[in-house]
Parts: sequence; C-alpha cells; structure tokens
Amino acid sequence: MTATQTISADAGQLHAFDDAIALEAAGEHRFLGRTTPAYWNMIGPFGGITAATLLQAALQHPQRLGDPIALTVNFAGPIAEGPFEIEARPSRTNRSTQHWHLELRQGGEVATTASAVFAVRRETWNCGEAVRPDAPPADALPAMGGFAPVRWLSAYDMRPVRGAKPGTAPGTENPDSLTQFWLRDAPARTPDFASVAAWCDSFYPRIFLKRAGFVPAGTVSLTTYFHADAATLAALGDSHVLASAQAQVFRQGFFDQRAQIWSAGGELLASSHQIVYYKE
Amino acid sequence: MTATQTISADAGQLHAFDDAIALEAAGEHRFLGRTTPAYWNMIGPFGGITAATLLQAALQHPQRLGDPIALTVNFAGPIAEGPFEIEARPSRTNRSTQHWHLELRQGGEVATTASAVFAVRRETWNCGEAVRPDAPPADALPAMGGFAPVRWLSAYDMRPVRGAKPGTAPGTENPDSLTQFWLRDAPARTPDFASVAAWCDSFYPRIFLKRAGFVPAGTVSLTTYFHADAATLAALGDSHVLASAQAQVFRQGFFDQRAQIWSAGGELLASSHQIVYYKE
Repeated sequence: MTATQTISADAGQLHAFDDAIALEAAGEHRFLGRTTPAYWNMIGPFGGITAATLLQAALQHPQRLGDPIALTVNFAGPIAEGPFEIEARPSRTNRSTQHWHLELRQGGEVATTASAVFAVRRETWNCGEAVRPDAPPADALPAMGGFAPVRWLSAYDMRPVRGAKPGTAPGTENPDSLTQFWLRDAPARTPDFASVAAWCDSFYPRIFLKRAGFVPAGTVSLTTYFHADAATLAALGDSHVLASAQAQVFRQGFFDQRAQIWSAGGELLASSHQIVYYKE
Repeated sequence: MTATQTISADAGQLHAFDDAIALEAAGEHRFLGRTTPAYWNMIGPFGGITAATLLQAALQHPQRLGDPIALTVNFAGPIAEGPFEIEARPSRTNRSTQHWHLELRQGGEVATTASAVFAVRRETWNCGEAVRPDAPPADALPAMGGFAPVRWLSAYDMRPVRGAKPGTAPGTENPDSLTQFWLRDAPARTPDFASVAAWCDSFYPRIFLKRAGFVPAGTVSLTTYFHADAATLAALGDSHVLASAQAQVFRQGFFDQRAQIWSAGGELLASSHQIVYYKE
C-alpha cells in the first residue's frame, strides 16, 4: 500500500475532489458551492473542477434521468475565490434522454454556462474503432514533478509519456503539440463521471508546448463525451488512465485541443475538445 | 459558367439556404422561423440547417459582438414541419467575447438548445498543425448521386473521395468509418458562418458505413469550432471544401464523430464533433 492509498482510505476523510464539487441544494434548481484551495489555478479555479462541479449539479438533481453522455462548458468570465451558485434546470426530459441547462453565477453575474445530455444506456452492438496509443505502463514511469506554481497540479498523479511538460526555450517551435501522460487523482480516487469531466481539462494549454514557453491562454469552451458507463469507471479502481491531447490549428487568437482518456486496458473512456484563447 | 452558377446568380432570387435560415425579429431576444422543404430530412429538418438557423439568430441579433468561435447544439426533441421560435440571449458580454444561450421551441416545448461563443478575432502568431488529407481535386471527381430519399442531400454538391456512400451489405463490417468528400452548396453559394455550421453536419451517421447498412440513429449533441474568419470564408467563393468525418467508438447506444472542413488550399476552416444515438 502506498502513502497515497493510505490517505484516501483514511476512515471518514472526504477526498479533496469530493470536497471541491460538494453542493448544497438551495431550491428546486439551485445549488450552492464554493471554490477550494486544493484545485486553485493561477487566478481562479482549475477549469476541470468547474466543469465537474457543474456536472455534479445535474448528477445530484432529484429529477436526473440516466448518466452523462455529453457536457459542454463555456467559460464566460472569471470565478473569484469564495461562494457561487449553480442553476441546474432540465430543458427537456424524454423517455430515455434528458437535456440540461446549467449556469454558475457569482455576485449575480454569469461566470460559466453549460449544457449536458444524460441518457439511459443500453447494451448494443459495440465497437472501439480508435486504438489506444502505445505507452510504457504507468508503474514504469516516474511521477512528474510540478512545473508550474499552480495548486491543482498536486491533485493529480501524472506520469509523463510524451510532451508532459511545456518547453522552456521560448522562440523554439515544436513540430507538434502532442502530450500523453498516465493520470490518476492524488490521493487515488475511484473515478466517476465528475472526475472524468475534470481529467479532460488536465492538460496545460497546447500553445505552451508548441511554442516552448508560456503564452497567456485560457479555455473558452470545453465539450466532453462520456463513452463509458458508471460500472466501467468504477471498475478502474485506482489504476491510471492514459490521457492524450493535441491541437489542430492555432489561428487569430484561438486554438483547439482534441483529448482522449483511455483505460489501461484500451477502452476509450471519454473524448473531449476545447477551444482556447491565446494572446500573441 | 455552370448551370449551378447560373441559378445562384439569378437576379433577386434568394438562395434556398438563406430562405431556410431566414428569421423575423419578434421581440428583444425572440425570432420567428419555419422549416422549409429544401432541407427536409426523413422525419424532421436536416440537423445542419437547425444548427445554422440557431447560429443565425445570434448572428443577426442587434447586440452581437464579433464572430462565432464555438457552437454547441443539443437536439432535445423532434422538430415538426412548420413555424418555430428561437430565443437568443447573450448570457454574458465581455470586452472581446460574448456567450449566447439559444433555444428553439415549437408549440411551447423546447426542441433544440444551443450555446455559442463569439469573439473579436485579432492577428496573432498562427500555425496549422494538422494537415489536410490528400485527395484528388474536386473537379476531377463526379458528383455523387443521391443514395437516400432525403431532400436535403440535393442542397449539396458532394464529390466522394472515400466512404461517401454507406455500404449496402448489412452484416459485413467495415474496418473504419472514415468518409471524405468535396462539398459545396448546390446551387453554389459563397460560404459564411451559417453555411459552415450546416456543412459540419452533412455526413450520414458513421454507423451506416461501419456496419454497411441502415441503423436507426440521430445526433444528440453537435459542437463546432470555427477556425476561419469571415474574410477567409468569403474568399472561398464557389470552390469546394474537403469534408472528412470518422468515429472513434460505438458503445451502448452512442457513437462519436470527429469532422473537419478544409479549404482546397489546406486551411482547416472548422472542426466539429458530435455524439449520436443509435439503436441495436
């Protein structure tokens, strides 16, 4: 048993992730939350924890039907340290699908909007067309030391396979923006839809890698598709997942990022895309 | 000059696409539209025309700031032939970005929800990392004959490069779900953000190709990122674009689709993703 597992198994102690996404019901479609230091980024919370918290509002809503299939989060404005409220409202509920409109507000102003699609999954003909990239096993790789003074990185155990740290030679340009690392919550935590939503935003901005240095950048919109059901996620236990991200184009102040989260066994658990603002 | 160009150049005649996305302002954030036969699918309008019409509401809103960067459309319920209303409301307007919440309703019920991010684009360091797939020029390829009895296919000139028709041997399984074709509106129409939004949904469901036959399927959520500005789109004139789409995984009733729209010159104009329901 590792030190990590000891901490997570500590009787009665809430995992920092569960603490961060905790919401208190405050009306039919209204929930109260607050930022936590453990997932703080440079000037606001880590975008992944905001995505997870918005999803959590729908997950714990009494009218919830089924499990998440799609989540789109639009980062409309800054979130300050402290309390916030989330409105989570079903836009339409069908027999086996449900559509959500979500808004995070602070001081009466909209900071983040989101939509989610939930559905009851059924057994069907299945096929994994995409294939997991080759990578040495997680246990064969050292954990990455922090490369940026941001707190949320400590909430993850990242084992770099490729491009996991941005370069440090501004002016040199990398031929690609591909990052791959093994990923797990730290302390370890059995994954669920909320933690997968956060994982999908765990990559630093692709332009840091492409341009080998820091460039002011921030995610504008993030969409995640969940390809695994709750049982598949629970069965992962404390194993690492392989996280991969790459940009296609950087143009006129915006670049995209395509990301994939794979199980060690080769299942595509989630795919995610984002469009990111960058300056110069 | 081709017959196609003659029609589109016909003095005073509204292109069927512009007719389909036409909206009448009916209040501060409210617009009235209606379905048109030219973009009819099997049991409702072509999803691409619905996406384009929702985007159009934000595009023609008097409070609009900048140009579309991201559009997410959630197909929540069926749209019947006839009139509909769209609510287009800015959720938040910043100095150079604007976030939109959009809803299409029919008979008081929400049929489609969407969000959009608009932004003022600036000249920056640019880089196209992804490379356009090789394909013979559009003019060297014959236009595809219709393969399905759906009207909207006639609104497009498609020149198949690969996988452009679903197979007709149910029971055989294709190794991949990759489709590539040259695409243009028919009659030709100089592209803009609305027509690009529609193009991104112009692929038949990937499972038709993978399983070589018809499977009941429908898009649940569609996200498009616009990588080109208005001037870049206008400069395309009546040239074809190369459209490409592929799935990564089919599982428990849902598969994904990753799509790209390339200019003949190799610029990635838009990238798009969707998650699609399938039965059996």
